This record gives sequence, structure tokens and C-alpha cells, in this order.
Amino acid sequence: MTTVAAYAAPAAKAPLERTTVERRPVGEHDVLIEIKFAGICHSDIHQAREGWGEAIFPMVPGHEIAGVVSEVGSAVTKFAVGDRVGVGCMVDSCRECENCKAGLEQYCAEGMTGTYNAIDRNGEPTYGGYSTHIVVDEAYTVRIPEGLALDEAAPLLCAGITTYSPLKHWNAGPGKKVAVLGMGGLGHLGVKIAHALGAEVTVLSQSLRKKDDGLKLGADHYYATSDPKTFEDLRGTFDLILSTVSAPLDLDAFLALLKTDGAFVNVGAPEEPVSLNLFSVIGGRKTLAGSSIGGIPETQEMLDFCAEHGFGAEIELISASEINEAYERVLASDVRYRFVIDTATI
Amino acid sequence: MTTVAAYAAPAAKAPLERTTVERRPVGEHDVLIEIKFAGICHSDIHQAREGWGEAIFPMVPGHEIAGVVSEVGSAVTKFAVGDRVGVGCMVDSCRECENCKAGLEQYCAEGMTGTYNAIDRNGEPTYGGYSTHIVVDEAYTVRIPEGLALDEAAPLLCAGITTYSPLKHWNAGPGKKVAVLGMGGLGHLGVKIAHALGAEVTVLSQSLRKKDDGLKLGADHYYATSDPKTFEDLRGTFDLILSTVSAPLDLDAFLALLKTDGAFVNVGAPEEPVSLNLFSVIGGRKTLAGSSIGGIPETQEMLDFCAEHGFGAEIELISASEINEAYERVLASDVRYRFVIDTATI
Repeated sequence: MTTVAAYAAPAAKAPLERTTVERRPVGEHDVLIEIKFAGICHSDIHQAREGWGEAIFPMVPGHEIAGVVSEVGSAVTKFAVGDRVGVGCMVDSCRECENCKAGLEQYCAEGMTGTYNAIDRNGEPTYGGYSTHIVVDEAYTVRIPEGLALDEAAPLLCAGITTYSPLKHWNAGPGKKVAVLGMGGLGHLGVKIAHALGAEVTVLSQSLRKKDDGLKLGADHYYATSDPKTFEDLRGTFDLILSTVSAPLDLDAFLALLKTDGAFVNVGAPEEPVSLNLFSVIGGRKTLAGSSIGGIPETQEMLDFCAEHGFGAEIELISASEINEAYERVLASDVRYRFVIDTATI
Repeated sequence: MTTVAAYAAPAAKAPLERTTVERRPVGEHDVLIEIKFAGICHSDIHQAREGWGEAIFPMVPGHEIAGVVSEVGSAVTKFAVGDRVGVGCMVDSCRECENCKAGLEQYCAEGMTGTYNAIDRNGEPTYGGYSTHIVVDEAYTVRIPEGLALDEAAPLLCAGITTYSPLKHWNAGPGKKVAVLGMGGLGHLGVKIAHALGAEVTVLSQSLRKKDDGLKLGADHYYATSDPKTFEDLRGTFDLILSTVSAPLDLDAFLALLKTDGAFVNVGAPEEPVSLNLFSVIGGRKTLAGSSIGGIPETQEMLDFCAEHGFGAEIELISASEINEAYERVLASDVRYRFVIDTATI
């Protein structure tokens, strides 16, 4: 076991503070990663504050991890010391079920093992990326291509794959009208990726405050959802709406913005149930769907795609001592567009 | 104008009674149909009682119409006097929009013209099939193949196409596990059609009361949704659940019965909004969707499919004087499986 520095929430809703956690010995299939950067995801806050149900404490959040391999197990074949690597939302799964075999480990029949706030397959709690080091099976580690800065790559491991996977699955591309709902950590990457995939991209944001940024990142159009006229003007417009917001939504109003056979796909998740009139999907044969991150092969594909198109996330780099303040700013939507912790400051 | 006999609701929630309505003169593209049989659809009751919102009275319900052509307009090419024909839920649409051109007239951008409870494109109210005759544009009339009895064919015009279209669209067929939720007018046809398409079919019904019928109609399995064990046993089982019920549902419980990438498709429609936890679709990338009847070409395809497979609906033939009683029995789920009015009794 190795003792490493970390930032942890000692209990639900408590501020995060500096502490240490134990990392397991490097097993034969493991890599030891010196974490360089860790993104702050809205779901870190949901979990640290038990908004999504009971959680495990102390909690070291962080599932947007970018770093460098500093040790490899004896049977490791994919990575060598010095390689630039990333770890996302999961560090294991059953590896046996239909979904795992299909590279959809995030939908593992037994449930994937979360990078933090989970109990791993040896019965030990997992601790995430707000830390200096982590030990991860190489099968759940991906390569960060040269050309992607590690700090800008970190948020791709959750926010990037969470938007890339449904955009690909629901065929965002040339000739398709795609709306990205919410212009935050997930949304701004949704815009970049949908644009890079060749779709015509519209941002639907609460206000026009971030319009200049949205257009710069690749959006073709930008509308405020606080303006009722938006819902008149855009009626029946989109093939796909990717919803990145975790606030409660008037789903019926957004479903009306879809074309026949259009899909409204949720990657953000409100803590409370939503209300829906089923006529909103019956008229126009519409789909309300969801998507959760992406599998390991697709996460690698996404990183390669972003490197090829020359973009990572838009970030604000912070030191570890600023984490609690950053949480408040995330809740206030006051971040452009992802906080990334410089783990050298832990 | 021709005066014809009909059964109509004079006002919302009032009993239906015998009356007469005017049918327009037979236009050059019209056929005059001598109606032989008209099915009673649950949505007739929803509309006659204003459960789906304000309606037009007097109302002659009926959009499951089977009959024989008795006169054709000068420009009619598809039909001749004596042809066996059917009319479903729509009698017109804009014919110009993308959906109309694609044979998806039910999703017409301007809205299809309903067979009853609608105002047609000349500003006149439409009256449905609980009547002796109807005048319909040949473009919205379909052929009932020889080998399908007219009385058993009538319910196919709504209940048949409403289940056939989504079963085809969501790829019910060999190797697919399909559940049909609800074993009523729609559901029993869903079972027959899904079975004929080659899928492995499970009925999910409130009780096991109709189990023998379900298995006889082609179901491989039959479960009661009133039994909590059903939801444990069938977790993660289905590629597709076709929901034909219009009662409020615990959607989250049913979404848990889907496989990864599975779809829960609503063709029944509760009058009230439903509640949904979006995590139910995010986990497993699931789809909650809807579907509304089918277009004219697909309605013809469905009739040909049913004739080829040698089945129509299971019906209880009634006389017009029994309509009000039949409505009560439909609401009590006391019909096996569709009431069909013998219009000779009007």
C-alpha cells in the first residue's frame, strides 16, 4: 500500500480538505499514474453532497484524471513509464457480460466500478482523482494523444465522452440539426464535438450571456431558453437535442422543438423526477433517451478525435485549496467552462 | 350532400344516439363507401367524453371503418365500385410537407385531418364510421385484401396499424424479445403482429385472466404486472416494450425491464402527465418513445401482412343500440378484444 495526498470530503456536505488515502500495490495488470490534473465535474458535487443518494465517506472525488504513468505491473502491455494517460468515470467492471464484451463497460450488467464513491471488486472503497497518484488496471486506462495538453484533456474523460458518445450514437453529423442544451462543462464540449462531427449546432442556454463563446466554439446559432419566443421559433427544428443540464426541465416544451423521429437525449440528470405528457413523444414518433459516459474503446476514440481536431476543454486551472470555492461557482454556473485542479498543489 | 344515418354523441359525456349527418358530394378524387363495420376504439371514448381536451359535437366517432365502394369520383384510379376498402384515423393531410411526401401523413406538419372530431380542409366538421356511409378521398382509403373478413379487418385500421408501425420501426423480429403491455384491443393485435414478425413475445397484463387467450394468439410468455415478482424476474429482459395502456404507469419500473439500448414505446396515452426519473433512461442508454398510428402506405402494408398471415382482430360484433353499453365494457376492460358495430343495425 502507498499513502498518497488527496483532497476529500470527510462527510456529506462537509467542505473538502487535505488528507491522505491508501492506494493498492501495483498489481500485474495495473499502472501507477502520477496525476497531473483532475477536472471538477458537477457530479462530484452531487455525490459529495449526497444529492444522488447515500454515498461513501471520506470521499475523494474526481473522475477526469490526466497524468503520466510512473510504474507498470509485470503483465502490462498497453503502457510504459512516461506515457500520458487518462482515467475517467470507471476503474473496473465485470468484463464478462454482453455489454462489457461489446465495449459498453459503462452499462455492465453487474454495474461498473466507479472511480470514486464505489466499492471495488476486492471490497475496498475507491478514491478518485483529487489526489497525487492512483493505481488503475490498464484495461480501464486510456492514452492521451500527443497534441492534447494534459490539463485541457482531463475534462474530456467525463465531460468529453459523455457528450461524444450520444452525439455519435444518435448520428450527429453533416445534414443534422443538433441542439446542445446548457452551455457549461458538458455543453461547451458538446458544441465543440457536434461541430467537429459536421452537424449544424444550436446552443440553447438560459441566457445569451455566453453567446460569443458559443459561436467561437463552433455553434451556428444561439438561443435563450428564458425567452418564450425561442420555443415558437424553433418548433420542429432539431434531429437531436443533447441535454446537459441537471436542473428540472419542461420536457414537453423541449420535445416540441424536435422534428419527427427526433431524439431528446439526457446526459444531465435532475435529482428529482420529471413530469412528461406522453403525447409529446407520440406525436412525431419522438424519443426521450439517456446516455451514460461511454465505454473504454469509445473513450479512446473520443480522445483521438479531439486530438485530431485540435481541441480539449476550455478550462480554469485552480489550486487544490480553491476546490470548495470552485464547487460554489459551479453551482452558480460561474465557470468557463471547467475547473481543473493542478494536483501539484495538493 | 347526402343525408346518412349515424350514431352520435350530441355533447360531451352524453350517451350516443341515432341521428343523421350530411356527407359531402362525391368529388372527383372521392369514393363513397357503404360502411359495413366500424370498430370501437378506446380513443372514441376519450374523445366523446373530452378526456383529451375540448371536442366537436355532435360527434360521430369511429375510425376503424371497413366497407365496400359504392360510387367513385371521375378521377379515381385506385378503386372501383364493389371494392372492399378501409378507412382509418385520418381522411386528409397537407400532402406537401416532408412527412406527407414520405408517407408519414400521420405526422403531417400542418396536422392530419382526423376521421372525426376534426375540421376538414374545407372548414367542415368530419364525421366518423358509426354511420352507414362515408365519402373519403381515395388517397386516404386503403384496400382490404380478399381473405380478411371485413368485420375482423375493421379494427386493423386503427388498433392494427398503431401496433404494427412501432413494431416494425423498432425492429421487432427474429431474435428480439418484445413485450406487449396491456392485453386489450391494441394489445391483442400487438401480440399477433409481433408473433407473426418472428419476435419472442411476452404479454405484460394486469392479471393472468387472459393468459390462455394470449398464448393462443401467439405469446410465448405471460406475466401479471400486479405481481411484484414480475419486475424482479424480467429485469433487463426486453429489446422492446410496446405499451398499449392508457392508464397511468410506473414508467421507471417498466424501463428497468429493458435491456441496454432497449425502447419503451407508448401507443396508449394517459390523460394525465406521467412522472419519470431520468436515471431510468440514462442507465442502459434506454429510449422512451411514442408512435401514432401509421401512414397510408404502411397501413396498406399492414393489411396485406395480416391477410398473408391469415389473421384479423378478435371481435365481439354488436348492434348500434349496444354502443353505450359497449363503452362501459371497454372502460371496464370487459371485451375480447374489440367491439365492432354491424352498421346494418344503425
